Amino acid sequence: MKIDLDQNSGAEEVVSARLADGRVRQSPRNLTSREYRSAGTMVDIDGVKVGLIELVVMAGPCSVESAEQILLIAREVNAAGATVLRGGAFKPRPSPYDFQGLGKIGREHLRAASRETGLKVVTEVVDPREVELVTEYADCLQIGSRNMHNYPLLCEVGRSSKPALLKRGLSASYKEFLLAAEYIMAQGNEQVILCERGIRGLSNELRFTLDLNAVPYLKQRTHLPVIVDPSHGTGSARLVPAMSLAAIACGADGIIVETHYSPVDSISDAAQTISTVEFAELMKDIAAVAEAVGRKAHSPVVR
Amino acid sequence: MKIDLDQNSGAEEVVSARLADGRVRQSPRNLTSREYRSAGTMVDIDGVKVGLIELVVMAGPCSVESAEQILLIAREVNAAGATVLRGGAFKPRPSPYDFQGLGKIGREHLRAASRETGLKVVTEVVDPREVELVTEYADCLQIGSRNMHNYPLLCEVGRSSKPALLKRGLSASYKEFLLAAEYIMAQGNEQVILCERGIRGLSNELRFTLDLNAVPYLKQRTHLPVIVDPSHGTGSARLVPAMSLAAIACGADGIIVETHYSPVDSISDAAQTISTVEFAELMKDIAAVAEAVGRKAHSPVVR
Amino acid sequence: MKIDLDQNSGAEEVVSARLADGRVRQSPRNLTSREYRSAGTMVDIDGVKVGLIELVVMAGPCSVESAEQILLIAREVNAAGATVLRGGAFKPRPSPYDFQGLGKIGREHLRAASRETGLKVVTEVVDPREVELVTEYADCLQIGSRNMHNYPLLCEVGRSSKPALLKRGLSASYKEFLLAAEYIMAQGNEQVILCERGIRGLSNELRFTLDLNAVPYLKQRTHLPVIVDPSHGTGSARLVPAMSLAAIACGADGIIVETHYSPVDSISDAAQTISTVEFAELMKDIAAVAEAVGRKAHSPVVR
Amino acid sequence: MKIDLDQNSGAEEVVSARLADGRVRQSPRNLTSREYRSAGTMVDIDGVKVGLIELVVMAGPCSVESAEQILLIAREVNAAGATVLRGGAFKPRPSPYDFQGLGKIGREHLRAASRETGLKVVTEVVDPREVELVTEYADCLQIGSRNMHNYPLLCEVGRSSKPALLKRGLSASYKEFLLAAEYIMAQGNEQVILCERGIRGLSNELRFTLDLNAVPYLKQRTHLPVIVDPSHGTGSARLVPAMSLAAIACGADGIIVETHYSPVDSISDAAQTISTVEFAELMKDIAAVAEAVGRKAHSPVVR
Repeated sequence: MKIDLDQNSGAEEVVSARLADGRVRQSPRNLTSREYRSAGTMVDIDGVKVGLIELVVMAGPCSVESAEQILLIAREVNAAGATVLRGGAFKPRPSPYDFQGLGKIGREHLRAASRETGLKVVTEVVDPREVELVTEYADCLQIGSRNMHNYPLLCEVGRSSKPALLKRGLSASYKEFLLAAEYIMAQGNEQVILCERGIRGLSNELRFTLDLNAVPYLKQRTHLPVIVDPSHGTGSARLVPAMSLAAIACGADGIIVETHYSPVDSISDAAQTISTVEFAELMKDIAAVAEAVGRKAHSPVVR
Repeated sequence: MKIDLDQNSGAEEVVSARLADGRVRQSPRNLTSREYRSAGTMVDIDGVKVGLIELVVMAGPCSVESAEQILLIAREVNAAGATVLRGGAFKPRPSPYDFQGLGKIGREHLRAASRETGLKVVTEVVDPREVELVTEYADCLQIGSRNMHNYPLLCEVGRSSKPALLKRGLSASYKEFLLAAEYIMAQGNEQVILCERGIRGLSNELRFTLDLNAVPYLKQRTHLPVIVDPSHGTGSARLVPAMSLAAIACGADGIIVETHYSPVDSISDAAQTISTVEFAELMKDIAAVAEAVGRKAHSPVVR
Repeated sequence: MKIDLDQNSGAEEVVSARLADGRVRQSPRNLTSREYRSAGTMVDIDGVKVGLIELVVMAGPCSVESAEQILLIAREVNAAGATVLRGGAFKPRPSPYDFQGLGKIGREHLRAASRETGLKVVTEVVDPREVELVTEYADCLQIGSRNMHNYPLLCEVGRSSKPALLKRGLSASYKEFLLAAEYIMAQGNEQVILCERGIRGLSNELRFTLDLNAVPYLKQRTHLPVIVDPSHGTGSARLVPAMSLAAIACGADGIIVETHYSPVDSISDAAQTISTVEFAELMKDIAAVAEAVGRKAHSPVVR
Repeated sequence: MKIDLDQNSGAEEVVSARLADGRVRQSPRNLTSREYRSAGTMVDIDGVKVGLIELVVMAGPCSVESAEQILLIAREVNAAGATVLRGGAFKPRPSPYDFQGLGKIGREHLRAASRETGLKVVTEVVDPREVELVTEYADCLQIGSRNMHNYPLLCEVGRSSKPALLKRGLSASYKEFLLAAEYIMAQGNEQVILCERGIRGLSNELRFTLDLNAVPYLKQRTHLPVIVDPSHGTGSARLVPAMSLAAIACGADGIIVETHYSPVDSISDAAQTISTVEFAELMKDIAAVAEAVGRKAHSPVVR
């Protein structure tokens, strides 16, 4: 399905009908809404299912730093029960003088770590011209919070065959968040995972304010899976374990966490990165809370 | 211990020393801090302990509407496992033309429902001239979010023998929240419970943004118990159960919830009030999550 | 006129009527609204008129520090064209260990400086028990932003014969701000000046975000005078002159500014205090902008 | 000049030096800063100078709706003293089902209206793949607030020969705003105009909170011109005149305003669009305030 934005067509039967006979669209039923699809959507990241009873845990470093770094972390998070590997290769940074990622070589290291461990890869795409290229390396395309309103990028990802992980904008309302997902779905890609990742707050005591209210609010309105990023969402490693458990308790379908075997040595986001040892501990606590709310954690690899 | 604010004295040894010899205070160690007291403080609401392994659940209607209403609700929340009864008698309302509460008679209804059920009473005090009076009716004095910066009121409550429940201001930083508690403690009352109740957010989709990050953040910095108000914190009854569970999962010492046998008939705050039936269901889920994180819920009354 | 809050009576004919015959109030017409009074209200601070073509300028130090300090500053701001002297005697401070003001003696210094210069005095009242006392020293009672929701205090000031200067709460909506003024007016005191003083913003680059949109927004809805506090509103002396001019340009009825002959030596708020020399310069620029928008600045004293 | 982001090169002598000998960059001096260039930068939009004593006024409808509409408005704003014509052809809208602009034909209408009136054209570019194309139609490339963090787009505009109008992101700090301009300048395009356009605020009484504090704050730190968009900045036509005057009073180098001969008939942004009659009135008031602060308004065309 293709949407012709210039003609302002919609993406549902009601809208198509309107286009044919010229009537005004009366009751829009967004593709993201529970009215459009009442049951939850299951997103399939090359075999890893998101949106089912079993939670998804995506983990890895902020940035891919070397082949050795990403492989070592991949092995540890895999052993602890994660099924998707995260890692930035091209990093959108507020300053042009900050580390911008390893680029293409970083993507290759990710792919190699994936082959070695069986973990699926999620990585960010920041340029509509690169969506096709990133698709070759990633199993899931992340759209970062700073690009939530980047409509050409949303549309390109909407034309991709890979699932999308859409992060909430830094000050986006829930409605705007869902409409951004609508841009992707309207292009035909219905495999969208929403990710709450913290909003701008009232003070600078935390880098961002993780807004867990988004989880039950969105789950009531949309059939799309909702996960939580407690690392960016708080900017503070000390809050990551508690907020991960809270995310699961209020109904999130999973989490995406920054972890590193040596957080202080991370090139980027050191303050919000937990150690792989803490991550393994956290996975046990997640299993307990998951069970308490009728969900299931992925079993860690037995060694 | 009394603090003479006009002379700007402090409340620790270091400070007193400075006052005696005139030196500048170098390393303030706030009374609320873990540096002042590393172990958690246990607050005792006439026998109900707050800050131990067992969680505290405070529940009741937004406003006391009649003797029958408050008694009926008291019985139901008691049966479900709550140990403290909440209910407003004097309501601080943004408009002078809104319902301001039953006043003195409301307090008497609360007291009667307490005698009947054994529940302890928490109710709000809004005027420094009334602290002594409210003390006769309440087991715990609530300072509402709109009065978090009301220093004369904080000082009067600080001179009271009853424990205080201090709600976070609508846009207060964590530091300001702790300093408000400091005002109470500096007067000698060290029985202070902090309550996260939602902050002003970026959109109007929710009345407030419940900021659960406050829970682990505060618990790491202060020895005081921290509870959560998911009713005011979200303004939406539909989010209350999920956010209650999340509060427990991230380390809260309890919750304070608005509930009514018929929420739509509540005079105030109907949109954020859950039914007593939903409340009883929630208590079961809380018990499960509490156990998952090494806490304990109070056992419901067996009938 | 007295309002009995327990009986939830209103303050207009429509409401009184309803109370008499029991009908539901249909069209509340708030006392603060242009519907209640279409022409602008002129507030009279013992001869200094606020709300007319001529702008009011209130100026002085953050805190009264000594008799000499306040008198020296009073003389300088008077010479530059201010007509009201500001200065805190009892300071509501976030920490109980911060300087809380000189107290009673500070009020006497203010009064003395007023006698000497002819300037009227505005000072803050923070406790409902002290309204009567402060009335003896002040020509205008200031209610600070942290007390905008302090309803007992608003009611006491509403029963006073002195005009009130009501500052907007740190995160108050325009509606809440007007309703706070309604509390004062409902008690019979219709001499209320509104003051925009900055709200909590999204970053910590400025202490507060002065919200000048409040000026035209409020002026369209209320007949009460609206002034601006660029000192607290920004927290930065470097922004005070520019934002003062902007305030006048968008329709404010005046400003209230912190100034000191030696800002770095201010006990409190040094960062946001301009020097009395800068203040005198600013007054000239204000005169020019005032004329450009059809207003008039008070003529400075000729020496 | 090309910047190789992977090597994290900068754009100043200090940085280049580091690249040559491998030393760590110690004291970054951003291209946007007053330290890099103390005098104000004059941006030249094909003959219209921005950043001089004379203010720039950009005006026009939200969207180009037809050849006749844009030409009629162009004639009216030209007669009133505007020198740049604004109008959206491709509109980034939160919903994929909203009017997305006339597209290519809209740009041609803009160009035709420019030829007819002599006004220069500013229009938005939303896709890095279209920068070159838009350059053929526009004299100044606008980057909208939703794309302030769109680094590939910033870099493409940085490689263009046309000046850029960069709008502040909806929740961007001043620092982030300046760093976004840095991305453009680091690519070699030093012709950047900053535009304050309102941030997400605390209430929904206004669509956005125009943050005029940004004007003096930025002017003190950067040599780039700063203009203000009171239309998007407030979302309310009733506030546009007052906030335009305030913008000039606090030091803005100009404004960009939405105007239409019949605002209610605007396809988009009707609520924040002033009539061309109101616009002509506003231009007279701007002239008066400009003179009061030592600036000059462009003389309206004599008919």
